[in-house]
Amino acid sequence: MRIDIITVVPDLLKSPFEASIMQRSISKGLVEVHFHNLRDYTDSSYKQIDDYQFGGGAGMVMMVEPIDKCISALKEERDYDEIIYMTPDGETLNQSIANQVSLLNNIIILCGHYKGVDQRVRDHFITREISIGDYVLSGGELGALILCDAVIRLIPGVLGNETSALTDSFQDDLLAPPVYTRPAEYKGWKVPEILTSGNTPKIESWREEQAYKHTLKRRPDLLKD
Amino acid sequence: MRIDIITVVPDLLKSPFEASIMQRSISKGLVEVHFHNLRDYTDSSYKQIDDYQFGGGAGMVMMVEPIDKCISALKEERDYDEIIYMTPDGETLNQSIANQVSLLNNIIILCGHYKGVDQRVRDHFITREISIGDYVLSGGELGALILCDAVIRLIPGVLGNETSALTDSFQDDLLAPPVYTRPAEYKGWKVPEILTSGNTPKIESWREEQAYKHTLKRRPDLLKD
Repeated sequence: MRIDIITVVPDLLKSPFEASIMQRSISKGLVEVHFHNLRDYTDSSYKQIDDYQFGGGAGMVMMVEPIDKCISALKEERDYDEIIYMTPDGETLNQSIANQVSLLNNIIILCGHYKGVDQRVRDHFITREISIGDYVLSGGELGALILCDAVIRLIPGVLGNETSALTDSFQDDLLAPPVYTRPAEYKGWKVPEILTSGNTPKIESWREEQAYKHTLKRRPDLLKD
Repeated sequence: MRIDIITVVPDLLKSPFEASIMQRSISKGLVEVHFHNLRDYTDSSYKQIDDYQFGGGAGMVMMVEPIDKCISALKEERDYDEIIYMTPDGETLNQSIANQVSLLNNIIILCGHYKGVDQRVRDHFITREISIGDYVLSGGELGALILCDAVIRLIPGVLGNETSALTDSFQDDLLAPPVYTRPAEYKGWKVPEILTSGNTPKIESWREEQAYKHTLKRRPDLLKD
């Protein structure tokens, strides 16, 4: 999978791709991630990529031309399955969208900044708009990081133990059951006896029951579908 | 505001705090952010912070003792308003939670990793559990970044123009209307005439109408409350 990220602050994106699972997936050759600085696609001597909005009001808007140039340059090199714009009014990311995106070969992720991009970018270049949640961030870069991480960990070979991803929360519309590790007793707080019983079938049904109860208590909406 | 982040991969967190709005808020002295490497709070010579889960199954679980030690050391220094655990089964972050958290003085954010933390950590140390959305990430660090960014930009003085945050999506339960900037025409695609009319009251009512229509189309759930 190849991911091209278009941004005005490429430096912001660096460290998460140099650590943990995203770094490992890149060094294993399972994913290629490229950052493109939007300022490299402007003719203006000030490297201007944003401007005041028509009609007045606070906040700058990202201009259509540099984005057009950057996307067009990328599209000349290869075909893209999706050109994704990270925006709070996009469809809300969930595990099923992450699963879908993880099957694609080439994607572009455009990170909005300031007040967002000129609407003409969204009308003419973007194929999918994704939000990571109902809150406002200072830019689309953090959203792009979330999307990349959620997607990359699903690519076969990225996680050491593939069953590990399959037993995560949301993969079966249930929250995960509680987990415990050593020591069996800490400051008087004990691990539930069943977990140290060695009785695997009983442990499995305890976990299912706990997952169901936990979901019912915290996220009954997940059980309705 | 002071934010203490407990993590097993502090390097991952670096660059986002060295760029953009989070960096500016720190250099202005409006926010202090400290990373704490959980491996510094273990006596084991292997710096072990995780172990296999009781009852069997894929994925490692973060142990209670290093987390206890780290949180206790921090609490000796000052009082904390919240000790937040980033987890996919926490309450889902939204703008109103971001607003609440932005009013606090001292918070600890614990980043889960692997299969999560020993349940006893959640039962005895954590005061609030927050999720950034219904998807699984490789660790709580990216969630912590999102929470920090959503919260920090709301602190007075962080954004240059405060009205800019108030007209964002979600602050009034409406999505933002479309925005446009120069040029007025690009490749034949024109900006809506009203926006270049100079008639401010008409522009305002056009924007309200657009925001309402856009919300009705994409997120009718926001209009129901």
